[in-house]
Amino acid sequence: MGCAPMGHILYDEVMRYNPKNPYWFNRDRFVLSAGHGCMLQYALLHLAGYSSVLDPSCAGMLYATSRPFSCKEKKDRNPPHLGPQMKKEDLKQFRQWGSRTPGHPENFETPGVEVTTGPLGQGIANAVGLALVEKHLAARFNKPDTEIVDHYTYVILGDGCQMEGISNEASSLAGHWGLGKLIAFYDDNHISIDGDTEIAFTEDVRARFDALGWHTIWVKTGNTGYDDIRAAIKEAKAVKDKPTLIKVTTTIGYGSPNKANSYSVHGSALGAKEVDATRQNLGWPYEPFHVPEDVKSHWSRHISEGASFEAEWNAKFAEYEKKYKEEAAELKSIISGELPAGWEKALPTYTPESSADATRNLSQQCINALASILPGFLGGSADLASSNMTLMKSFGDFQKFSPEERNLRFGVREHGMGAICNGIALHSPGLIPYCATFFVFTDYMRPAIRISALSEARVIYVMTHDSIGLGEDGPTHQPIEHLMSFRAMPNILMLRPADGTETAGSYKVAVLNKKRPSILALSRQKLPHLAGTSIEGVEKGGYIVSDDSLGNKPDIILTGSGSELEIAVKAAEELRKEGKTVRVVSLVSWELFEEQSDKYKESVFPEAVTARVSIEAGATFGWEKFVGTKGKAIGINRFGASAPAGKIYKEFGLTPENAVAVAKSL
Amino acid sequence: MGCAPMGHILYDEVMRYNPKNPYWFNRDRFVLSAGHGCMLQYALLHLAGYSSVLDPSCAGMLYATSRPFSCKEKKDRNPPHLGPQMKKEDLKQFRQWGSRTPGHPENFETPGVEVTTGPLGQGIANAVGLALVEKHLAARFNKPDTEIVDHYTYVILGDGCQMEGISNEASSLAGHWGLGKLIAFYDDNHISIDGDTEIAFTEDVRARFDALGWHTIWVKTGNTGYDDIRAAIKEAKAVKDKPTLIKVTTTIGYGSPNKANSYSVHGSALGAKEVDATRQNLGWPYEPFHVPEDVKSHWSRHISEGASFEAEWNAKFAEYEKKYKEEAAELKSIISGELPAGWEKALPTYTPESSADATRNLSQQCINALASILPGFLGGSADLASSNMTLMKSFGDFQKFSPEERNLRFGVREHGMGAICNGIALHSPGLIPYCATFFVFTDYMRPAIRISALSEARVIYVMTHDSIGLGEDGPTHQPIEHLMSFRAMPNILMLRPADGTETAGSYKVAVLNKKRPSILALSRQKLPHLAGTSIEGVEKGGYIVSDDSLGNKPDIILTGSGSELEIAVKAAEELRKEGKTVRVVSLVSWELFEEQSDKYKESVFPEAVTARVSIEAGATFGWEKFVGTKGKAIGINRFGASAPAGKIYKEFGLTPENAVAVAKSL
Repeated sequence: MGCAPMGHILYDEVMRYNPKNPYWFNRDRFVLSAGHGCMLQYALLHLAGYSSVLDPSCAGMLYATSRPFSCKEKKDRNPPHLGPQMKKEDLKQFRQWGSRTPGHPENFETPGVEVTTGPLGQGIANAVGLALVEKHLAARFNKPDTEIVDHYTYVILGDGCQMEGISNEASSLAGHWGLGKLIAFYDDNHISIDGDTEIAFTEDVRARFDALGWHTIWVKTGNTGYDDIRAAIKEAKAVKDKPTLIKVTTTIGYGSPNKANSYSVHGSALGAKEVDATRQNLGWPYEPFHVPEDVKSHWSRHISEGASFEAEWNAKFAEYEKKYKEEAAELKSIISGELPAGWEKALPTYTPESSADATRNLSQQCINALASILPGFLGGSADLASSNMTLMKSFGDFQKFSPEERNLRFGVREHGMGAICNGIALHSPGLIPYCATFFVFTDYMRPAIRISALSEARVIYVMTHDSIGLGEDGPTHQPIEHLMSFRAMPNILMLRPADGTETAGSYKVAVLNKKRPSILALSRQKLPHLAGTSIEGVEKGGYIVSDDSLGNKPDIILTGSGSELEIAVKAAEELRKEGKTVRVVSLVSWELFEEQSDKYKESVFPEAVTARVSIEAGATFGWEKFVGTKGKAIGINRFGASAPAGKIYKEFGLTPENAVAVAKSL
Repeated sequence: MGCAPMGHILYDEVMRYNPKNPYWFNRDRFVLSAGHGCMLQYALLHLAGYSSVLDPSCAGMLYATSRPFSCKEKKDRNPPHLGPQMKKEDLKQFRQWGSRTPGHPENFETPGVEVTTGPLGQGIANAVGLALVEKHLAARFNKPDTEIVDHYTYVILGDGCQMEGISNEASSLAGHWGLGKLIAFYDDNHISIDGDTEIAFTEDVRARFDALGWHTIWVKTGNTGYDDIRAAIKEAKAVKDKPTLIKVTTTIGYGSPNKANSYSVHGSALGAKEVDATRQNLGWPYEPFHVPEDVKSHWSRHISEGASFEAEWNAKFAEYEKKYKEEAAELKSIISGELPAGWEKALPTYTPESSADATRNLSQQCINALASILPGFLGGSADLASSNMTLMKSFGDFQKFSPEERNLRFGVREHGMGAICNGIALHSPGLIPYCATFFVFTDYMRPAIRISALSEARVIYVMTHDSIGLGEDGPTHQPIEHLMSFRAMPNILMLRPADGTETAGSYKVAVLNKKRPSILALSRQKLPHLAGTSIEGVEKGGYIVSDDSLGNKPDIILTGSGSELEIAVKAAEELRKEGKTVRVVSLVSWELFEEQSDKYKESVFPEAVTARVSIEAGATFGWEKFVGTKGKAIGINRFGASAPAGKIYKEFGLTPENAVAVAKSL
């Protein structure tokens, strides 16, 4: 209620969008970082006449109407929505099963919602990603005679978002990058769930943003000061080299005579009686959900106006395409998400004779290969580029004065990095952001990774130093439970390649899975290229690397992932020397394997073979799934240690010798 | 090398400590938040004559020499250390197996190291916790005639720590709380791993801290300006109502003629040649690891000086004890960690006739019970106190001007909250901090939770809204993979109680486990008190709640945790009506169950009974461990939905009817 004036001005006066095509490429983006206030956005979408375009790819204007998902892909989601538009009935079904008006804004449920917010601070960081894309694409594609990319990113964030560390991380980067077309409204209402912010939040937010390199404005009259808000937006737009924070002082629950300015309106409904009192207080004599004719007629222009915006842009693009064929093709690919034909042939290939290398280095070869062929591929590391091996050699750094470049320098800000990448991925279907840190520090960015999974954002997480194999940095830096923690998460691919071929396969899978993020766990230490690994195998998640048995009945199955597959292979050689028949199975992605047919799964792990040993440098928790009740899992169920990698592997029993001994015990 | 002057001044001139008892209660605390620079701290500990006290509890001065762990509890850690002191040999074994000089500072390995750092930003937040404790205990226990609690907390943090969001969260709170005895040195060396901070970090840090309510000072001569550093510390101490940030501009690798001021000295050794050049450049003609006699003799005074500090304090405490018997007893309990006799009797008890209630409400009863009996019990929520039900009714809010109170108001800063609680827990063995948010937002604080587990910090994580049962807030707020993600983490207890009795049991376990943190997953929705639940059962992690079979051979075992135990119980009743013998097993903590004898485990889950069904409102990943290859797991392997809880439970098949159907299929 306190944000209604900002919302009104944005949707009715300021933003350029096409309600009949919420996915029009050059639209202004709006993010409600304070996602719990989503009814405001739903109401505005309703007034503006928003509608979902069910199958934009049929419209013949792919570049103009691309959207992040198609309805048939949503079959495993909630029941079909009530209708193609944001109808009154949708608003009445707020927070109900199957509605398009969930308790927090979800891009995969509601056309017109750009990203998924609710977990505080994510939205402002997503908005930084959206604004980054605009600056980047504008620098790459705009011409002296044509501004083909040209939109603003607006965001509303509240006290909760401001308290979260992620918002400081992302805002620091926005200031550093000089994202002049990012305009953030800070809903300064002094109330959070526990009461007055006086009890926990007394910093000077505006001064902090000044320190972060933003332009800041204070609107003291947020409840009613429409002209002040308009003036602030005008001022913000005039400042082109800095993002702008407009601190808008408001009253939470503005208009409610008895509950305004109290925490009781933060998370609870007003109640029928107070709603009546509020209507009376605000002079709003209409029945619930009624939109008076004059309001309806006032807002109705957005449908034709929006259609004009898009048509004008389409015409401009048609001209652009004539003059700048190559650029237009690239931009089209970014807008549509269509991958260049044969792109996967760019990925490097390896044989067992290729020289041993760390998968983080092999990953860099893949990154550079993809950089050369995918126009929407961009990314970087949280201050570990030279350890994560993530620099694209053919590009420079995306910076304030070189925004056309594609290497992103996130600083030590993993959480902000992940959420910025979500914003990048959800800007346009052809953008493929990657980001990197040590695997253990996925902990720092886990809320953003979860939002990637939930919101179907294709972010590639390049996570190196994926086990105790990183050695001397010790237990604070050595992941143990992380593989399992992601294997348990819905809609994400956890990939742990064992060598060059599997690394290339993992990138292929990551790029092709447009509706889910992928995490690649990569080694610091050198690994040999193994006989029997394959890209097709990676695509199945799990597969037989070698087997010397007959009739699908080896004496024992050894299985593992990543750097421990080599150990399984060596143990198998030893056991075979002793006359045993041994199968080695690579389980590079449990999720992909789970999606295979029962028949295929049985062909890899036959029920009759119960002697199974897994080996993986991580928690054994979860391996029961594959080794069963009669098998054994070799792994690590304690924290790591600071020592050279080889020493720790030996002390922890992650050796071919131990695998042989355990196998024999079965 | 750039921090050496600060380190020298702190350890040689400023800090009060007793090297022969690193755990002396009233010592000044030092935290190296930039933990990768730990060799500096190890060297200083060596010079100061630090030594571990192997069994302080035998010294007869428990209150003065308590330490966070005893050596016999470390048997599952790395091999015994090289010697009782920080010897030259320890320094030579830097980052080697079994050394007390790991790659990052670890409180459980190295006496004199207060907390475990390395993951950036954690240390500064720990330091806020340490300083909070000092302010709190001083307010509670100091008397007009006796300052019995009186120490400073010093911290060195670098650019990396400053970029991390957690440091902004914790620093905002430190400013809000006015922690005047917190003095932070910001090592402003302009270099991080990826190079000059110019590429990603151009904000005005000092201005940001001003905005956060800190006193700030800039020492521009950090490499050599000893007097400037001394003056800054003096100024910082004079400011009593604000924490102080001393920005100290330094050169990374100071003294190295060819590598100083470059990223190449950040993560790599200088190399023999450059070490030689550096020695020459600095005029240091000694051989490696040699401490000249004059230096040795200069530093030797710390042993006698430290002994005097402690002796004086002991004498003061003896006087205090005479005058203030009750306060002294409380403080002693906080220092020693000894729990008041019979404390667990304060926990509430329930019967199946008690009225149904959400476990979050039952948790609040436990919290208030513990608040009345445990002098070191304090905590709060990240702006969800009224949802998490975490307020202690007998206390007010810990605030700048009411630091004697015990309800902590963290604001929406989960990550900072967790790390601050680690600092609290590791200040003194009798402090038992708890902190709270929604279970799904453990993601926001996961790095801090992991450090709790690694550093053996007894933090109680009160995590409510533990499943889709929270309803309308939708999938962004509904945990799915979280239970499993913590069950896979070492040295942490993941507890999910089913009713009042199990909630009380969970608190008992959490308090008694002094060397590991506990997470309590608690329901938003009401649950009945079940027949057969018990505190003893909780202590075993898993136990039989009901069984109508004979000879340890029920037809089927139904198992679950938390809110789904009720469903298992109801399904069992139904199946029994149909003539089946059914066992219901509560698995409230997998970790505790795992620690039971094989015999006990077999008595609960007999190998011969393979018909097993689990039911839990979370990922089924991991349940293979208990349901085996022939059983079935009912759970949720997708994201949740926004709708009333009952509706989602029904749609997702988490019902007695479905459990009965699945059981029958086996």
